[in-house]
Amino acid sequence: MNLSPRTIERLSKYRRMLEKYRRSDGAYIFSHQLAHLLDLTPVQVRRDLMLIGLSGNHRKGYNISELIKLIGQTIDAKEGHNIAIIGMGNLGRAVTRFIRKNKSKMNIVAGFDIDAAKVNEEVDGVPCYHISTIRSYIKELSIDIGVLTTSPEAAQNITNLLIDSGVRGLLNFTSVHLDVPPNVYLKDYDIMTSLEEIGFFILNPNDNKQD
Amino acid sequence: MNLSPRTIERLSKYRRMLEKYRRSDGAYIFSHQLAHLLDLTPVQVRRDLMLIGLSGNHRKGYNISELIKLIGQTIDAKEGHNIAIIGMGNLGRAVTRFIRKNKSKMNIVAGFDIDAAKVNEEVDGVPCYHISTIRSYIKELSIDIGVLTTSPEAAQNITNLLIDSGVRGLLNFTSVHLDVPPNVYLKDYDIMTSLEEIGFFILNPNDNKQD
Repeated sequence: MNLSPRTIERLSKYRRMLEKYRRSDGAYIFSHQLAHLLDLTPVQVRRDLMLIGLSGNHRKGYNISELIKLIGQTIDAKEGHNIAIIGMGNLGRAVTRFIRKNKSKMNIVAGFDIDAAKVNEEVDGVPCYHISTIRSYIKELSIDIGVLTTSPEAAQNITNLLIDSGVRGLLNFTSVHLDVPPNVYLKDYDIMTSLEEIGFFILNPNDNKQD
Repeated sequence: MNLSPRTIERLSKYRRMLEKYRRSDGAYIFSHQLAHLLDLTPVQVRRDLMLIGLSGNHRKGYNISELIKLIGQTIDAKEGHNIAIIGMGNLGRAVTRFIRKNKSKMNIVAGFDIDAAKVNEEVDGVPCYHISTIRSYIKELSIDIGVLTTSPEAAQNITNLLIDSGVRGLLNFTSVHLDVPPNVYLKDYDIMTSLEEIGFFILNPNDNKQD
């Protein structure tokens, strides 16, 4: 299977929407309904579902439970992923609580901080360890994803340490450009840049919205 | 000028990198240096800078101060943007502090919450008002960007209220798919979907990384 980041993104959104939809509506859904709920085209939805193995006749629509299960088989790791939050300041604690609130296969197993006052405190059941112990905990706890909410100054050094210890995925909230090797999957949440982008297109609504 | 979201994103990142670079290095920078710092190609950098009016001979490199100024003239609003954070829970307070720490033309002027206990408390100097007063404050304070950190259940209703009141840009942290009219610029920070995307590509590193 050859799935692009945008396809994975849509599959993840289909599943979340289907879980919501299942509670209120029927057992089946048509591609045009799912498309409508997410502002996509029915063709796009059908193409994505074909990519994960759903083809053939769906005159009654797709069985929602089967669809949720199939998306899970495609995008989830069997035992889920173990995540660490690095930087347990305001943002790190908020993100920890946010992820814990969402039922998913993403398990936050540890937080790390340089501040001794934060170490040994729990945030929503997640223990916080000192940053100096990060290497051994990453191995012991099989952590493969790191969420970076450190200071900008610490971001690259911590990233190097995480990668050296075996982390292969990063969600970066620091607004710092990180150098990572090609075998590491990095996603940036650059709040300041996103606000500048939003600000620009409010004032220039007719500019090209395509890339 | 016809600038795409990705171009604006890069211009914003050039500026941040140049501000950092200026403190430690010279007054001039070559396109290949800037490209290297951000993992881009020199051709890409030169194309972006030509788009904002910098062409001709740059044998000595680009004057950094001039470049920062020119990027500002292109992407900043003269008086900046006024921002409201809607939902002053953990995430809302963390994002408020994060934006306040970054010097920029993005002014957080108000927070809103449904919880009476949060109203009239300040977060890093930003007052919190009750959600029922949002319409009048948005007009009075000329708020044009909303950062959404509410509960998923409240997200769409609050979005409608914001748009009715004149907000034209949204940064959405709620992981809810929002319906907005075409004249509103929406940017989604969907943490659960991003973690699922990262998780998938850790396990399937050879899948197509292009869209």
